[in-house]
Amino acid sequence: MNTFGKLFTLTTFGESHGAAVGGVVDGMPAGIPVDTAFIQHELDRRRPGQSRITTDRREADRVELLSGVFEGKSTGAPIGFLVRNTNQHSKDYDDIRNLFRPSHADYTYYSKYGIRDHRGGGRASARITLSRVVAGALAKLVLRQLDISITAYTSQVGDIQLDRDCRRYDLSRIESNPVRCPDPGKAKEMEALIAQVKQEGDTIGGVVTCVVKGCPAGLGEPESGKLHALLGAAMLSINAAKGFEYGEGFAGAAWRGSQQNDIFLPAKEKPQTSNLKPQTSNLKLQTNHSGGIQGGISNGEDIYFRVAFKPVATLLMAQQTVDKAGHPVTMNVRGRHDPCVLPRAVPVVEAMAAMTILDALLISRTNRL
Amino acid sequence: MNTFGKLFTLTTFGESHGAAVGGVVDGMPAGIPVDTAFIQHELDRRRPGQSRITTDRREADRVELLSGVFEGKSTGAPIGFLVRNTNQHSKDYDDIRNLFRPSHADYTYYSKYGIRDHRGGGRASARITLSRVVAGALAKLVLRQLDISITAYTSQVGDIQLDRDCRRYDLSRIESNPVRCPDPGKAKEMEALIAQVKQEGDTIGGVVTCVVKGCPAGLGEPESGKLHALLGAAMLSINAAKGFEYGEGFAGAAWRGSQQNDIFLPAKEKPQTSNLKPQTSNLKLQTNHSGGIQGGISNGEDIYFRVAFKPVATLLMAQQTVDKAGHPVTMNVRGRHDPCVLPRAVPVVEAMAAMTILDALLISRTNRL
Amino acid sequence: MNTFGKLFTLTTFGESHGAAVGGVVDGMPAGIPVDTAFIQHELDRRRPGQSRITTDRREADRVELLSGVFEGKSTGAPIGFLVRNTNQHSKDYDDIRNLFRPSHADYTYYSKYGIRDHRGGGRASARITLSRVVAGALAKLVLRQLDISITAYTSQVGDIQLDRDCRRYDLSRIESNPVRCPDPGKAKEMEALIAQVKQEGDTIGGVVTCVVKGCPAGLGEPESGKLHALLGAAMLSINAAKGFEYGEGFAGAAWRGSQQNDIFLPAKEKPQTSNLKPQTSNLKLQTNHSGGIQGGISNGEDIYFRVAFKPVATLLMAQQTVDKAGHPVTMNVRGRHDPCVLPRAVPVVEAMAAMTILDALLISRTNRL
Amino acid sequence: MNTFGKLFTLTTFGESHGAAVGGVVDGMPAGIPVDTAFIQHELDRRRPGQSRITTDRREADRVELLSGVFEGKSTGAPIGFLVRNTNQHSKDYDDIRNLFRPSHADYTYYSKYGIRDHRGGGRASARITLSRVVAGALAKLVLRQLDISITAYTSQVGDIQLDRDCRRYDLSRIESNPVRCPDPGKAKEMEALIAQVKQEGDTIGGVVTCVVKGCPAGLGEPESGKLHALLGAAMLSINAAKGFEYGEGFAGAAWRGSQQNDIFLPAKEKPQTSNLKPQTSNLKLQTNHSGGIQGGISNGEDIYFRVAFKPVATLLMAQQTVDKAGHPVTMNVRGRHDPCVLPRAVPVVEAMAAMTILDALLISRTNRL
Repeated sequence: MNTFGKLFTLTTFGESHGAAVGGVVDGMPAGIPVDTAFIQHELDRRRPGQSRITTDRREADRVELLSGVFEGKSTGAPIGFLVRNTNQHSKDYDDIRNLFRPSHADYTYYSKYGIRDHRGGGRASARITLSRVVAGALAKLVLRQLDISITAYTSQVGDIQLDRDCRRYDLSRIESNPVRCPDPGKAKEMEALIAQVKQEGDTIGGVVTCVVKGCPAGLGEPESGKLHALLGAAMLSINAAKGFEYGEGFAGAAWRGSQQNDIFLPAKEKPQTSNLKPQTSNLKLQTNHSGGIQGGISNGEDIYFRVAFKPVATLLMAQQTVDKAGHPVTMNVRGRHDPCVLPRAVPVVEAMAAMTILDALLISRTNRL
Repeated sequence: MNTFGKLFTLTTFGESHGAAVGGVVDGMPAGIPVDTAFIQHELDRRRPGQSRITTDRREADRVELLSGVFEGKSTGAPIGFLVRNTNQHSKDYDDIRNLFRPSHADYTYYSKYGIRDHRGGGRASARITLSRVVAGALAKLVLRQLDISITAYTSQVGDIQLDRDCRRYDLSRIESNPVRCPDPGKAKEMEALIAQVKQEGDTIGGVVTCVVKGCPAGLGEPESGKLHALLGAAMLSINAAKGFEYGEGFAGAAWRGSQQNDIFLPAKEKPQTSNLKPQTSNLKLQTNHSGGIQGGISNGEDIYFRVAFKPVATLLMAQQTVDKAGHPVTMNVRGRHDPCVLPRAVPVVEAMAAMTILDALLISRTNRL
Repeated sequence: MNTFGKLFTLTTFGESHGAAVGGVVDGMPAGIPVDTAFIQHELDRRRPGQSRITTDRREADRVELLSGVFEGKSTGAPIGFLVRNTNQHSKDYDDIRNLFRPSHADYTYYSKYGIRDHRGGGRASARITLSRVVAGALAKLVLRQLDISITAYTSQVGDIQLDRDCRRYDLSRIESNPVRCPDPGKAKEMEALIAQVKQEGDTIGGVVTCVVKGCPAGLGEPESGKLHALLGAAMLSINAAKGFEYGEGFAGAAWRGSQQNDIFLPAKEKPQTSNLKPQTSNLKLQTNHSGGIQGGISNGEDIYFRVAFKPVATLLMAQQTVDKAGHPVTMNVRGRHDPCVLPRAVPVVEAMAAMTILDALLISRTNRL
Repeated sequence: MNTFGKLFTLTTFGESHGAAVGGVVDGMPAGIPVDTAFIQHELDRRRPGQSRITTDRREADRVELLSGVFEGKSTGAPIGFLVRNTNQHSKDYDDIRNLFRPSHADYTYYSKYGIRDHRGGGRASARITLSRVVAGALAKLVLRQLDISITAYTSQVGDIQLDRDCRRYDLSRIESNPVRCPDPGKAKEMEALIAQVKQEGDTIGGVVTCVVKGCPAGLGEPESGKLHALLGAAMLSINAAKGFEYGEGFAGAAWRGSQQNDIFLPAKEKPQTSNLKPQTSNLKLQTNHSGGIQGGISNGEDIYFRVAFKPVATLLMAQQTVDKAGHPVTMNVRGRHDPCVLPRAVPVVEAMAAMTILDALLISRTNRL
């Protein structure tokens, strides 16, 4: 229940205010150079306290790899890792010990388990996504060997949104602003909106777009292993995610087939059908409305998809709620919280995509002798 | 790769033009009355040739249960079942043996496996969803014992759409029109649009909404077992699905937290936290923007979600494409096809939801001693 | 719970007296020639009524493949199959409807499920192993492409036993006698013992030895995927199996390390470490006490192991037992039963070994990029 | 590949000479008191350096629980844990960097992964079993709530063996001698044999017997989930294990059915068929040759089984071998090693049994509504 993937797997553990957050990556192919600086860099992209529009919680979030790497390379053994929690203010949460915060997991965890670690959201905290970023960084190190790249960005905050077509943007600009948006003008607007919302003690939602380049054809399996369904499950597992679409998605539901079909055209290269390496082929597509996946299997085009995030449930304003005994309470949350999850969700989206693509790629190796 | 679920599982087999389509349901609790007429009835809802707006392929689609039922009750043993394919026109597909139809799975299957059963879409045909409907009917028979009901309907065809709020509709009306839409006026409009699109040899997409009532709190697991992620994966695995959202979904990404949070109010009943039965509780929610799931775990409210479907890729008009040798070809598809997948997708959405909810319910039984 | 394997999987269904017994094989690599005559031949080796020392139940046991094969080759899609039950004498079992037969699964199934299909042992019947033989035959067809062979034989019946060292026997002689024993003299003794036991209405146990030749080094995974543990689980899942050992097994527990260690010697060939094909290497082993597996991973030597089977529980003599109400009953079983499971267990052992080796082989392909 | 179990799972990581060894336990039921002193106590039973007949490697092996426990109780969240490696003498292994030690995993790991952590056996070291002992202790804490107990002991060292019938021994005496043998006289003999073997630089094998008391009827699933097959897989996954048998095992293969069948007798208590709690019943067994499991499902009697261990492969004497380049080498191992794995294997056997029984128990809860 806390394990992602089938061959490349991540099992996570940890709570917001426990001793540490971490996990075990199993199925890492052997012989891959493990660049620990890169892993830490990815983690730093998710770290709290990066800018004025993220939470004030400041933790170094230093990852320690405990196993599976020998003389700089993966050995094929599982990679255990952890990040110590160092800056918990557990007392900030004493007031909510017996309360259910609105639209949090407080009530559902209590219903499910009959017990709940109320400190900082416990197991349901977004803090636990850092394990995913570590595993995603490892997956990226493998994919890099195959020239597969994964890039996500903030494409909507509140009602400020980019064009759906990701090809219109220069993705190298994403990290140049705190919102992680490739359109500098929109980025400024988004940042201003988040700052304003924060000042009001409120929060705001948005959308992350993700693009996978260099993915070979043949990834994804029929029925329960369709590539977009695996990506969807991975994305929807991220805290605060409320929706997933790929290709033309919900908008394309209003189209006709004659508009949405991607026509094949002849191409010059010679045919190549291996499912292991990015392919040249004797055909190409006129359009990519399908989003790089047809019948649940990658077709060699760019894969792109979008993930909707709701506004963060923790508001720095008075809210009505009920305590365990059923009495009404007015709640004033303290603690340090993000007014908008989007900028820090970007590396998590990338991480989940990297793990999913790598897992599908490994499985596809067994499709033929 | 062809198995859904963890404890209540369905493994499917079959191709559009093979001998039979079927599957194995494992994990069916013992002692459940198995109403075979109900199973056949569910299958009839998915059957081709129901009305003028579905495909002309006519098959009786009689399901045979081969095991796991004794004297009318489930025994706990796996339930094998099959439906013979009886009305294949495989010759209709001879022309496309060496072609890749646009936006179908032809090219991706060929890339993946180096071989492809071209007849009627083979393994990628929507025909194979009938196995899911059989398994979903079995799941419904279990959920019925717990007063959990699942109802889906067509909420959008092309640009004709219903209000997002499913509470506005009388769900008992859904089966009274061929579109399976609870708004009789909109249903007529949708039917007319589909008929027109069919006449043009074109196809059209849409959206299915699904509502789960009576689901107890406590279903869904942290991290990889979040209930909405499992539902999302299940829905996205349905042929032609392009997007999934629950609660306020993509629209809610533009909202503020103060708008989207669901406030708890005191309720009169005494506290009850069992995760096994629909619960009374000492609190209730003012709104249900969350869609019945918070932190990935059900909260006892109605669960609702939406699934986007693209227009069917098979057009009854000339299309450009490329053959295996890389030569351009003008293709004229024959065969019998749906101009709009929505009406027949409704029972498949329900089936996948029933399986997912039952599986989560069984797992939740192990959360405490 | 009814699925074997991780990548090459078999999900089975069926009861002794239900409509059919069958299963779904998923993960069959694409492009493999599927020799249906070979599959039927393997099934015939397991068929009842082959000789005077097996059960008198006579069924043709014709297998029908329902999917996953196109123009004689596997397509990568799941292979559904079934064998109709045609010669049930369910009335033979009316007397035991309310009884628990000693050392059968009657009482445990009833305890577990609260319901039981009493006819012919229901789900617990050895008849359901035929699904395994079909899947094993498919696995053998894949392994044949890689020159990996699997051969089992009866090495003990009662107290008549062969030498432990399988290299002493000509394995091509196994099918020349009804006991499936490579030593013609011992085979005769075993056959006489079984015939005598049958006449007394009693039954007798024994041991099957299995040898895998041509298996490359590198199969099996650390911890939960050790090759011998996977083989052990597969063998112990066969009806009436009571023990498993590989290499020197239980006997070797009395040895010293200096006796049991397998010494490496230089060999002439050049080094080769690929885990995908049978390897030449620059070393060889002086002995093979390890049984071809070291640290849970194959080392390229012959893999050999032994499986103990208890005597069949169904006796054709009066036995004391108790009915559901707790009353003592003297039971006289009718029906047609094997006096010794060994001869017909041989193809089942081979089938489970073939599936296990193929599954491990597919997984090992993902150990490196 | 490094994960055990289906609902109660353990994922392990770590190498002999890495930073730490640990794991993640997922599926721990919520609300269980977590007695950390008991967990440490179990780990101390496995610790090196306990007596003159175990390895001289001395490590405190202090376990740190990192998550999943709040105010002394399990929360239902995964329990991450680790034990730091503190006393590695990695230099002891420099000589074997390019050698393959006989009957170790050196060659097979190298064949599989193309890279190998040679220090202390790396991932293949018996040191990594400590993760299992921690997880097993957690499982025992759950089983204790249900009055299920698990006890293992050394029943054979070399050719010194106990009677097969575990009922003949007073199991409370096991911990009173360093061999963990309930027969004080045999324990002395075994200890002397191990000491002698150690002095010779040699090693010796043996057998562990394990008994599960209080296990309710109904645990274990048909086909791939048979309880004895799960126990077998768990036991065979322990380092140096070579065989597994339950009930009368290999010896019983020579018996007749009329000897081995367990006859049911009437009992006084009223019928009870729940699969969740130890049961009273209206029947009892005259004998328990079956070993508490019939048809793969527990019957409420004591479960007992035996595990064969080969002699440790590391000898403190000169051995011939080959290096990576294929040259013959005479190898003299230094390092600190057990002359006999048995005494320290006892707690590992118990741990694997506890995990397996608990997992089966959780699954059995979903057999009926």
